[in-house]
Amino acid sequence: MSSSPSPRGRPRDPRSHEAIVSAAAELVAEVGYAATSIGAVAARAGVGKDTVYRRWRGKPELVFEAVFTATDHAPVPDTGTLAGDLSALLRGLVDEFRAPAAAAALPGLLADFAADPLLRARIRSGFLAPSKERLLVVFERAETRGEIAAGTPVDLVLDTLAGAVFFHVGLVGEHPDPRLAEQLAAVMAKGIEVR
Amino acid sequence: MSSSPSPRGRPRDPRSHEAIVSAAAELVAEVGYAATSIGAVAARAGVGKDTVYRRWRGKPELVFEAVFTATDHAPVPDTGTLAGDLSALLRGLVDEFRAPAAAAALPGLLADFAADPLLRARIRSGFLAPSKERLLVVFERAETRGEIAAGTPVDLVLDTLAGAVFFHVGLVGEHPDPRLAEQLAAVMAKGIEVR
Repeated sequence: MSSSPSPRGRPRDPRSHEAIVSAAAELVAEVGYAATSIGAVAARAGVGKDTVYRRWRGKPELVFEAVFTATDHAPVPDTGTLAGDLSALLRGLVDEFRAPAAAAALPGLLADFAADPLLRARIRSGFLAPSKERLLVVFERAETRGEIAAGTPVDLVLDTLAGAVFFHVGLVGEHPDPRLAEQLAAVMAKGIEVR
Repeated sequence: MSSSPSPRGRPRDPRSHEAIVSAAAELVAEVGYAATSIGAVAARAGVGKDTVYRRWRGKPELVFEAVFTATDHAPVPDTGTLAGDLSALLRGLVDEFRAPAAAAALPGLLADFAADPLLRARIRSGFLAPSKERLLVVFERAETRGEIAAGTPVDLVLDTLAGAVFFHVGLVGEHPDPRLAEQLAAVMAKGIEVR
Protein backbone atom coordinates (compact mmCIF):
# COMPACT_ATOMS: atom_id res chain seq x y z
CA MET A 1 0.00 0.00 0.00
CA SER A 2 1.38 3.41 -0.97
CA SER A 3 0.43 4.90 2.39
CA SER A 4 2.56 2.38 4.29
CA PRO A 5 4.87 4.17 6.71
CA SER A 6 8.49 3.12 6.93
CA PRO A 7 9.39 0.24 9.28
CA ARG A 8 9.68 0.97 12.95
CA GLY A 9 11.30 -1.13 15.64
CA ARG A 10 13.77 -4.00 15.19
CA PRO A 11 12.99 -7.13 13.15
CA ARG A 12 11.84 -9.21 16.10
CA ASP A 13 10.29 -6.34 18.03
CA PRO A 14 7.51 -8.22 19.83
CA ARG A 15 5.17 -5.23 19.43
CA SER A 16 5.45 -5.17 15.66
CA HIS A 17 5.21 -8.97 15.56
CA GLU A 18 1.96 -8.82 17.50
CA ALA A 19 0.68 -5.91 15.41
CA ILE A 20 1.36 -7.82 12.15
CA VAL A 21 -0.32 -11.00 13.36
CA SER A 22 -3.38 -9.08 14.61
CA ALA A 23 -3.62 -7.11 11.37
CA ALA A 24 -3.48 -10.33 9.33
CA ALA A 25 -6.24 -11.98 11.37
CA GLU A 26 -8.44 -8.86 11.14
CA LEU A 27 -7.93 -8.43 7.39
CA VAL A 28 -8.67 -12.08 6.58
CA ALA A 29 -11.88 -11.92 8.61
CA GLU A 30 -12.89 -8.65 6.92
CA VAL A 31 -11.97 -9.12 3.25
CA GLY A 32 -11.22 -12.85 2.94
CA TYR A 33 -8.01 -14.73 2.27
CA ALA A 34 -7.71 -13.98 -1.45
CA ALA A 35 -7.99 -10.21 -0.99
CA THR A 36 -5.53 -10.11 1.91
CA SER A 37 -2.07 -9.00 0.78
CA ILE A 38 1.21 -8.64 2.61
CA GLY A 39 1.15 -4.95 1.66
CA ALA A 40 -2.26 -4.40 3.22
CA VAL A 41 -1.25 -6.26 6.38
CA ALA A 42 1.93 -4.21 6.68
CA ALA A 43 0.02 -0.95 6.19
CA ARG A 44 -2.52 -1.83 8.86
CA ALA A 45 0.22 -2.90 11.27
CA GLY A 46 2.17 0.28 10.63
CA VAL A 47 5.30 -1.49 9.40
CA GLY A 48 7.02 -1.89 6.05
CA LYS A 49 6.55 -4.96 3.87
CA ASP A 50 10.21 -5.87 4.41
CA THR A 51 9.54 -6.20 8.13
CA VAL A 52 6.84 -8.76 7.36
CA TYR A 53 9.01 -10.67 4.89
CA ARG A 54 11.88 -10.76 7.39
CA ARG A 55 9.73 -12.93 9.63
CA TRP A 56 7.37 -14.85 7.27
CA ARG A 57 8.06 -16.39 3.87
CA GLY A 58 4.70 -15.34 2.49
CA LYS A 59 0.98 -14.99 3.00
CA PRO A 60 0.21 -18.65 3.85
CA GLU A 61 2.78 -18.72 6.67
CA LEU A 62 1.63 -15.37 8.06
CA VAL A 63 -2.09 -16.15 7.91
CA PHE A 64 -1.59 -19.64 9.35
CA GLU A 65 0.26 -18.17 12.34
CA ALA A 66 -2.34 -15.43 12.74
CA VAL A 67 -5.28 -17.81 12.69
CA PHE A 68 -4.15 -21.23 13.91
CA THR A 69 -1.41 -20.72 16.45
CA ALA A 70 -3.14 -18.34 18.85
CA THR A 71 -2.83 -20.82 21.72
CA ASP A 72 0.79 -21.77 21.01
CA HIS A 73 2.13 -19.31 23.54
CA ALA A 74 -0.22 -20.31 26.35
CA PRO A 75 1.25 -22.68 28.95
CA VAL A 76 1.09 -26.34 27.94
CA PRO A 77 -1.85 -27.90 29.82
CA ASP A 78 -0.84 -29.89 32.90
CA THR A 79 -4.03 -31.31 34.41
CA GLY A 80 -2.45 -34.45 35.83
CA THR A 81 -3.94 -36.88 33.30
CA LEU A 82 -3.35 -37.54 29.60
CA ALA A 83 -7.08 -37.31 28.86
CA GLY A 84 -7.33 -34.00 30.70
CA ASP A 85 -4.36 -32.52 28.87
CA LEU A 86 -5.60 -33.70 25.45
CA SER A 87 -9.03 -32.28 26.24
CA ALA A 88 -7.49 -28.87 27.04
CA LEU A 89 -5.42 -28.92 23.82
CA LEU A 90 -8.54 -29.87 21.84
CA ARG A 91 -10.63 -27.09 23.38
CA GLY A 92 -8.02 -24.61 22.15
CA LEU A 93 -8.10 -26.18 18.69
CA VAL A 94 -11.90 -26.08 18.51
CA ASP A 95 -11.87 -22.40 19.51
CA GLU A 96 -9.30 -21.63 16.82
CA PHE A 97 -11.35 -23.33 14.10
CA ARG A 98 -14.55 -21.62 15.26
CA ALA A 99 -13.07 -18.11 15.00
CA PRO A 100 -14.37 -16.03 12.04
CA ALA A 101 -10.81 -15.51 10.76
CA ALA A 102 -10.29 -19.30 10.59
CA ALA A 103 -13.46 -19.89 8.61
CA ALA A 104 -12.45 -17.09 6.25
CA ALA A 105 -8.87 -18.31 5.85
CA LEU A 106 -9.30 -22.07 5.57
CA PRO A 107 -10.43 -22.52 1.92
CA GLY A 108 -7.74 -20.21 0.54
CA LEU A 109 -5.04 -21.72 2.73
CA LEU A 110 -5.99 -25.24 1.65
CA ALA A 111 -6.00 -24.20 -2.00
CA ASP A 112 -2.51 -22.67 -1.61
CA PHE A 113 -1.22 -25.86 0.02
CA ALA A 114 -2.78 -27.97 -2.72
CA ALA A 115 -1.24 -25.88 -5.49
CA ASP A 116 2.28 -25.68 -4.07
CA PRO A 117 4.26 -28.86 -3.27
CA LEU A 118 7.10 -26.83 -1.71
CA LEU A 119 4.68 -25.16 0.66
CA ARG A 120 3.11 -28.52 1.50
CA ALA A 121 6.54 -29.99 2.19
CA ARG A 122 6.95 -27.42 4.96
CA ILE A 123 3.72 -28.33 6.76
CA ARG A 124 5.39 -30.68 9.23
CA SER A 125 8.69 -28.86 9.57
CA GLY A 126 7.11 -25.42 9.85
CA PHE A 127 3.37 -25.02 10.22
CA LEU A 128 2.75 -27.94 12.60
CA ALA A 129 6.00 -27.76 14.55
CA PRO A 130 4.69 -25.62 17.46
CA SER A 131 1.64 -27.88 17.94
CA LYS A 132 3.85 -30.95 17.88
CA GLU A 133 6.15 -29.42 20.51
CA ARG A 134 3.18 -28.89 22.82
CA LEU A 135 1.88 -32.41 22.27
CA LEU A 136 5.35 -33.82 22.96
CA VAL A 137 5.40 -32.09 26.36
CA VAL A 138 2.01 -33.66 27.16
CA PHE A 139 3.32 -37.06 26.01
CA GLU A 140 6.49 -36.77 28.14
CA ARG A 141 4.44 -36.11 31.25
CA ALA A 142 2.08 -38.99 30.41
CA GLU A 143 5.08 -41.28 29.91
CA THR A 144 6.52 -40.22 33.28
CA ARG A 145 3.18 -41.06 34.92
CA GLY A 146 3.23 -44.45 33.17
CA GLU A 147 0.10 -43.71 31.12
CA ILE A 148 1.72 -44.23 27.72
CA ALA A 149 4.77 -46.08 26.45
CA ALA A 150 7.85 -44.45 24.95
CA GLY A 151 7.54 -44.13 21.20
CA THR A 152 3.80 -43.43 21.07
CA PRO A 153 3.39 -42.08 17.50
CA VAL A 154 3.03 -38.34 18.03
CA ASP A 155 2.49 -37.49 14.34
CA LEU A 156 -0.37 -39.98 14.10
CA VAL A 157 -2.06 -38.52 17.16
CA LEU A 158 -1.47 -34.94 16.00
CA ASP A 159 -2.93 -35.65 12.54
CA THR A 160 -5.88 -37.43 14.11
CA LEU A 161 -6.78 -34.70 16.59
CA ALA A 162 -6.27 -31.86 14.10
CA GLY A 163 -8.02 -33.78 11.31
CA ALA A 164 -11.02 -34.61 13.47
CA VAL A 165 -11.49 -30.99 14.54
CA PHE A 166 -10.94 -29.76 10.98
CA PHE A 167 -13.53 -32.23 9.70
CA HIS A 168 -16.10 -31.59 12.41
CA VAL A 169 -15.80 -27.82 12.77
CA GLY A 170 -13.93 -26.54 9.72
CA LEU A 171 -15.55 -28.64 7.01
CA VAL A 172 -18.99 -29.68 8.21
CA GLY A 173 -19.21 -26.34 10.02
CA GLU A 174 -21.62 -27.60 12.61
CA HIS A 175 -22.03 -25.80 15.85
CA PRO A 176 -19.68 -28.15 17.67
CA ASP A 177 -21.03 -30.31 20.44
CA PRO A 178 -19.61 -28.79 23.65
CA ARG A 179 -18.47 -32.30 24.58
CA LEU A 180 -16.47 -32.77 21.34
CA ALA A 181 -13.08 -31.99 22.90
CA GLU A 182 -13.74 -34.11 25.98
CA GLN A 183 -15.14 -37.12 24.05
CA LEU A 184 -12.38 -37.13 21.46
CA ALA A 185 -9.70 -36.70 24.15
CA ALA A 186 -11.15 -39.63 26.10
CA VAL A 187 -11.18 -41.90 23.02
CA MET A 188 -7.64 -40.97 21.97
CA ALA A 189 -6.20 -41.22 25.48
CA LYS A 190 -7.75 -44.66 25.99
CA GLY A 191 -6.57 -45.66 22.51
CA ILE A 192 -2.91 -44.93 23.19
CA GLU A 193 -2.68 -45.66 26.91
CA VAL A 194 -0.75 -48.67 28.15
CA ARG A 195 -3.29 -51.48 28.69
CA MET B 1 -21.02 -29.37 -24.95
CA SER B 2 -22.69 -28.95 -28.32
CA SER B 3 -21.57 -32.39 -29.46
CA SER B 4 -23.43 -34.09 -26.60
CA PRO B 5 -25.64 -36.85 -27.97
CA SER B 6 -29.18 -37.21 -26.69
CA PRO B 7 -29.75 -39.24 -23.52
CA ARG B 8 -29.83 -42.99 -23.79
CA GLY B 9 -31.12 -45.53 -21.29
CA ARG B 10 -33.47 -44.91 -18.38
CA PRO B 11 -32.69 -42.42 -15.59
CA ARG B 12 -31.18 -44.99 -13.23
CA ASP B 13 -29.65 -47.17 -15.95
CA PRO B 14 -26.63 -48.57 -14.10
CA ARG B 15 -24.54 -48.39 -17.27
CA SER B 16 -25.08 -44.66 -17.72
CA HIS B 17 -24.62 -44.10 -13.98
CA GLU B 18 -21.26 -45.83 -14.11
CA ALA B 19 -20.31 -44.02 -17.33
CA ILE B 20 -21.09 -40.63 -15.76
CA VAL B 21 -19.15 -41.35 -12.57
CA SER B 22 -16.15 -42.61 -14.55
CA ALA B 23 -16.24 -39.61 -16.88
CA ALA B 24 -16.33 -37.23 -13.91
CA ALA B 25 -13.32 -38.90 -12.23
CA GLU B 26 -11.35 -38.89 -15.49
CA LEU B 27 -12.13 -35.26 -16.30
CA VAL B 28 -11.23 -34.01 -12.84
CA ALA B 29 -7.90 -35.83 -12.99
CA GLU B 30 -7.22 -34.47 -16.49
CA VAL B 31 -8.36 -30.84 -16.37
CA GLY B 32 -8.89 -30.15 -12.66
CA TYR B 33 -12.02 -29.45 -10.66
CA ALA B 34 -12.61 -25.87 -11.80
CA ALA B 35 -12.53 -26.76 -15.50
CA THR B 36 -14.79 -29.80 -15.09
CA SER B 37 -18.38 -29.00 -16.09
CA ILE B 38 -21.56 -31.07 -16.02
CA GLY B 39 -21.78 -30.56 -19.80
CA ALA B 40 -18.31 -31.96 -20.39
CA VAL B 41 -18.99 -34.93 -18.12
CA ALA B 42 -22.27 -35.65 -19.91
CA ALA B 43 -20.60 -35.44 -23.33
CA ARG B 44 -17.82 -37.83 -22.33
CA ALA B 45 -20.32 -40.26 -20.80
CA GLY B 46 -22.50 -40.12 -23.90
CA VAL B 47 -25.60 -38.87 -22.07
CA GLY B 48 -27.54 -35.63 -21.94
CA LYS B 49 -27.03 -33.07 -19.18
CA ASP B 50 -30.58 -33.72 -17.98
CA THR B 51 -29.62 -37.34 -17.28
CA VAL B 52 -26.83 -36.09 -15.01
CA TYR B 53 -29.03 -33.55 -13.24
CA ARG B 54 -31.72 -36.20 -12.69
CA ARG B 55 -29.28 -38.02 -10.41
CA TRP B 56 -27.00 -35.32 -8.96
CA ARG B 57 -27.81 -31.80 -7.75
CA GLY B 58 -24.63 -30.36 -9.17
CA LYS B 59 -20.90 -30.69 -9.71
CA PRO B 60 -19.86 -31.04 -6.03
CA GLU B 61 -22.22 -33.99 -5.48
CA LEU B 62 -21.18 -35.69 -8.73
CA VAL B 63 -17.44 -35.22 -8.21
CA PHE B 64 -17.65 -36.28 -4.56
CA GLU B 65 -19.38 -39.51 -5.56
CA ALA B 66 -16.92 -40.08 -8.40
CA VAL B 67 -13.86 -39.57 -6.24
CA PHE B 68 -14.70 -40.46 -2.65
CA THR B 69 -17.28 -43.21 -2.70
CA ALA B 70 -15.53 -45.75 -4.91
CA THR B 71 -15.51 -48.32 -2.13
CA ASP B 72 -19.12 -47.74 -1.01
CA HIS B 73 -20.43 -50.61 -3.10
CA ALA B 74 -17.84 -53.14 -1.95
CA PRO B 75 -19.00 -55.53 0.77
CA VAL B 76 -18.70 -54.09 4.27
CA PRO B 77 -15.56 -55.63 5.84
CA ASP B 78 -16.24 -58.51 8.21
CA THR B 79 -12.88 -59.65 9.58
CA GLY B 80 -14.16 -60.80 12.95
CA THR B 81 -12.72 -57.92 14.99
CA LEU B 82 -13.50 -54.21 15.27
CA ALA B 83 -9.83 -53.30 14.74
CA GLY B 84 -9.68 -55.48 11.62
CA ASP B 85 -12.84 -54.00 10.16
CA LEU B 86 -11.75 -50.41 10.87
CA SER B 87 -8.37 -51.16 9.33
CA ALA B 88 -10.05 -52.41 6.14
CA LEU B 89 -12.31 -49.35 5.96
CA LEU B 90 -9.30 -47.09 6.48
CA ARG B 91 -7.25 -48.80 3.77
CA GLY B 92 -10.07 -48.01 1.33
CA LEU B 93 -10.14 -44.40 2.51
CA VAL B 94 -6.37 -44.01 2.15
CA ASP B 95 -6.56 -45.43 -1.39
CA GLU B 96 -9.35 -42.99 -2.28
CA PHE B 97 -7.38 -39.98 -1.02
CA ARG B 98 -4.21 -41.13 -2.82
CA ALA B 99 -5.92 -41.36 -6.22
CA PRO B 100 -4.96 -38.60 -8.70
CA ALA B 101 -8.61 -37.61 -9.10
CA ALA B 102 -8.92 -37.02 -5.34
CA ALA B 103 -5.86 -34.80 -5.19
CA ALA B 104 -7.19 -32.86 -8.17
CA ALA B 105 -10.71 -32.54 -6.75
CA LEU B 106 -10.07 -31.79 -3.08
CA PRO B 107 -9.17 -28.06 -3.12
CA GLY B 108 -12.07 -27.13 -5.41
CA LEU B 109 -14.53 -29.28 -3.48
CA LEU B 110 -13.44 -27.74 -0.16
CA ALA B 111 -13.74 -24.24 -1.61
CA ASP B 112 -17.28 -25.01 -2.85
CA PHE B 113 -18.26 -26.34 0.57
CA ALA B 114 -16.76 -23.29 2.27
CA ALA B 115 -18.61 -20.88 -0.02
CA ASP B 116 -22.05 -22.51 0.18
CA PRO B 117 -23.75 -23.04 3.56
CA LEU B 118 -26.61 -24.99 1.92
CA LEU B 119 -24.13 -27.40 0.35
CA ARG B 120 -22.32 -27.74 3.68
CA ALA B 121 -25.59 -28.46 5.44
CA ARG B 122 -25.98 -31.54 3.24
CA ILE B 123 -22.58 -33.02 4.13
CA ARG B 124 -23.96 -35.30 6.84
CA SER B 125 -27.32 -36.05 5.27
CA GLY B 126 -25.93 -36.64 1.80
CA PHE B 127 -22.20 -36.82 1.20
CA LEU B 128 -21.25 -38.79 4.31
CA ALA B 129 -24.38 -40.95 4.56
CA PRO B 130 -23.01 -44.00 2.68
CA SER B 131 -19.80 -44.04 4.76
CA LYS B 132 -21.83 -43.76 7.94
CA GLU B 133 -24.04 -46.68 6.88
CA ARG B 134 -20.96 -48.86 6.40
CA LEU B 135 -19.49 -47.83 9.74
CA LEU B 136 -22.83 -48.56 11.44
CA VAL B 137 -22.76 -52.13 10.10
CA VAL B 138 -19.24 -52.55 11.51
CA PHE B 139 -20.43 -51.11 14.85
CA GLU B 140 -23.45 -53.43 15.00
CA ARG B 141 -21.24 -56.48 14.55
CA ALA B 142 -18.78 -55.19 17.17
CA GLU B 143 -21.66 -54.61 19.57
CA THR B 144 -22.95 -58.14 18.99
CA ARG B 145 -19.46 -59.48 19.78
CA GLY B 146 -19.41 -57.36 22.96
CA GLU B 147 -16.48 -55.24 21.79
CA ILE B 148 -18.29 -51.90 22.05
CA ALA B 149 -21.29 -50.61 23.94
CA ALA B 150 -24.55 -49.48 22.36
CA GLY B 151 -24.52 -45.78 21.59
CA THR B 152 -20.84 -45.50 20.66
CA PRO B 153 -20.73 -42.10 18.93
CA VAL B 154 -20.56 -43.02 15.23
CA ASP B 155 -20.32 -39.44 13.95
CA LEU B 156 -17.36 -38.73 16.21
CA VAL B 157 -15.54 -41.84 14.99
CA LEU B 158 -16.42 -41.13 11.34
CA ASP B 159 -15.15 -37.53 11.57
CA THR B 160 -12.01 -38.70 13.33
CA LEU B 161 -11.11 -41.41 10.83
CA ALA B 162 -11.93 -39.30 7.77
CA GLY B 163 -10.28 -36.23 9.26
CA ALA B 164 -7.09 -38.09 10.12
CA VAL B 165 -6.77 -39.54 6.61
CA PHE B 166 -7.62 -36.19 5.03
CA PHE B 167 -4.99 -34.49 7.17
CA HIS B 168 -2.27 -37.09 6.66
CA VAL B 169 -2.77 -37.91 2.98
CA GLY B 170 -4.91 -35.15 1.51
CA LEU B 171 -3.35 -32.12 3.17
CA VAL B 172 0.22 -32.99 4.13
CA GLY B 173 0.38 -35.14 0.99
CA GLU B 174 3.02 -37.42 2.37
CA HIS B 175 3.52 -40.82 0.92
CA PRO B 176 1.44 -42.50 3.60
CA ASP B 177 3.09 -44.92 5.94
CA PRO B 178 1.78 -48.36 4.91
CA ARG B 179 0.92 -48.95 8.56
CA LEU B 180 -1.25 -45.80 8.80
CA ALA B 181 -4.57 -47.63 8.41
CA GLU B 182 -3.60 -50.39 10.81
CA GLN B 183 -2.14 -48.08 13.48
CA LEU B 184 -5.05 -45.67 13.40
CA ALA B 185 -7.58 -48.52 13.45
CA ALA B 186 -5.84 -50.05 16.48
CA VAL B 187 -5.87 -46.73 18.37
CA MET B 188 -9.53 -46.01 17.57
CA ALA B 189 -10.72 -49.54 18.31
CA LYS B 190 -8.94 -49.57 21.67
CA GLY B 191 -10.28 -46.09 22.36
CA ILE B 192 -13.93 -47.05 21.95
CA GLU B 193 -13.86 -50.66 23.10
CA VAL B 194 -15.55 -51.67 26.33
CA ARG B 195 -12.86 -51.75 29.08
